[in-house]
Amino acid sequence: MRYALLLSYDGTNYGGWQIQKNAVTVQEKLTSALEETLGYKVNITASGRTDSGVHASAQVCHFDADTTIPPEKFADAFNFRLPDDISVLKSVRAPEGFDAVKSAKRKTYCYRVYISPQRLPLKDRYSVRIKFPIDVEKLCECAKMFEGEHDFFAYCASGSQVKTTVRTIYSVEVKTQITGDVLEIGIYVTGNGFLYNMVRTLAGTMLYYSAGRISREDIARSIEGRDRSAVGKTMPANGLTLESVDYGIELF
Amino acid sequence: MRYALLLSYDGTNYGGWQIQKNAVTVQEKLTSALEETLGYKVNITASGRTDSGVHASAQVCHFDADTTIPPEKFADAFNFRLPDDISVLKSVRAPEGFDAVKSAKRKTYCYRVYISPQRLPLKDRYSVRIKFPIDVEKLCECAKMFEGEHDFFAYCASGSQVKTTVRTIYSVEVKTQITGDVLEIGIYVTGNGFLYNMVRTLAGTMLYYSAGRISREDIARSIEGRDRSAVGKTMPANGLTLESVDYGIELF
Repeated sequence: MRYALLLSYDGTNYGGWQIQKNAVTVQEKLTSALEETLGYKVNITASGRTDSGVHASAQVCHFDADTTIPPEKFADAFNFRLPDDISVLKSVRAPEGFDAVKSAKRKTYCYRVYISPQRLPLKDRYSVRIKFPIDVEKLCECAKMFEGEHDFFAYCASGSQVKTTVRTIYSVEVKTQITGDVLEIGIYVTGNGFLYNMVRTLAGTMLYYSAGRISREDIARSIEGRDRSAVGKTMPANGLTLESVDYGIELF
Repeated sequence: MRYALLLSYDGTNYGGWQIQKNAVTVQEKLTSALEETLGYKVNITASGRTDSGVHASAQVCHFDADTTIPPEKFADAFNFRLPDDISVLKSVRAPEGFDAVKSAKRKTYCYRVYISPQRLPLKDRYSVRIKFPIDVEKLCECAKMFEGEHDFFAYCASGSQVKTTVRTIYSVEVKTQITGDVLEIGIYVTGNGFLYNMVRTLAGTMLYYSAGRISREDIARSIEGRDRSAVGKTMPANGLTLESVDYGIELF
């Protein structure tokens, strides 16, 4: 029987989703919790790997198990064995043929920044400080340039092995909030898939554009000319959160 | 010459504001940073002590020093020597006769909770999970009962030594936000001063009232009868943040 979990985690203390030798990972912690609960080996597949330090407010994963525990009880049972920074929010029996990777239609990531002359410790865990002024109108203008099907080669870390660097971005939305004299910005990117470091480089490029450091021509060159020298800085991992995975059905 | 600092800190890893033997404190870290920068002993006085694990988005403190460093440069100079979870936001030369404790007119604390059947790791650092349903209208109704000058004896941890337990609460405001299916609540309490654990016990009492666990009569008994058995649970420290200190002047 296949089951699906909705999962949230604070990525600060993890080397990303995927099990690896030299770092503690979310997949490792979750696998241990499931195996201790169920009593046998379990393979867990997430909608996609999140990188070291990246957070998830709603990651989706699946696993196969043969158990009499009702699926809606999984969340409580697993959370009991998980560390405080990983939590199973919901658990269900997966629909026929469901696969957390292959069935995923769209994913939304959010990159969060705030503008302040000094560090704000209460913001720093989930967003990144920008010291230079940001023109929000230009940020929204730049957002539009990325929507659609494009070759995001220039936005993919070199050395990553993928068949194609063409991806479709359905929307790039900019949400702002002002608290006191601090401007907080969330850049929400929804696409059919993302390359390694793609959202962090998109965010860096948008911020550079909005600060006048990158031109409209640079952006065109980065997409049409696949020119890595035309893009902005790849932003730090802690500002990035996987917000949702859309399967085209009400899964949970 | 007297100087004033506006300070923010994430209290998670500190035994509160005040220097003590058995824990690392914010005052200790800040004192070290100032002394290393200035080259001599400095006494720092904050508007009030925050307890172990309590955060501050805008704490105010003062110190006396004899230096040629322009006051507006202090923030950068001190932050260079402070850990990431403490930050000086602004620094100024204090007005004549200013004292961070004695000149304070009002302080505002915020207690944050969220309602969710499971833990939300991305909320847990600065707010506390409530498992039972909360009636927001009843929460606002309860807020009104605390406004005004009252004897908050029942809301003060036993054993604390104060001349009087009478305090004036200027306002208790409830702000809500719904993200997905998660209700987040901020209880903002503004008063002329607070007793030990007072805001955390006020918050617990309001939440119990809104869940029907405490009656209007219990609240009356807690204030007029100074009855500690009539109040709700003292809520955990991590949900509490010192939001602002008002000196009746534009200090920064």
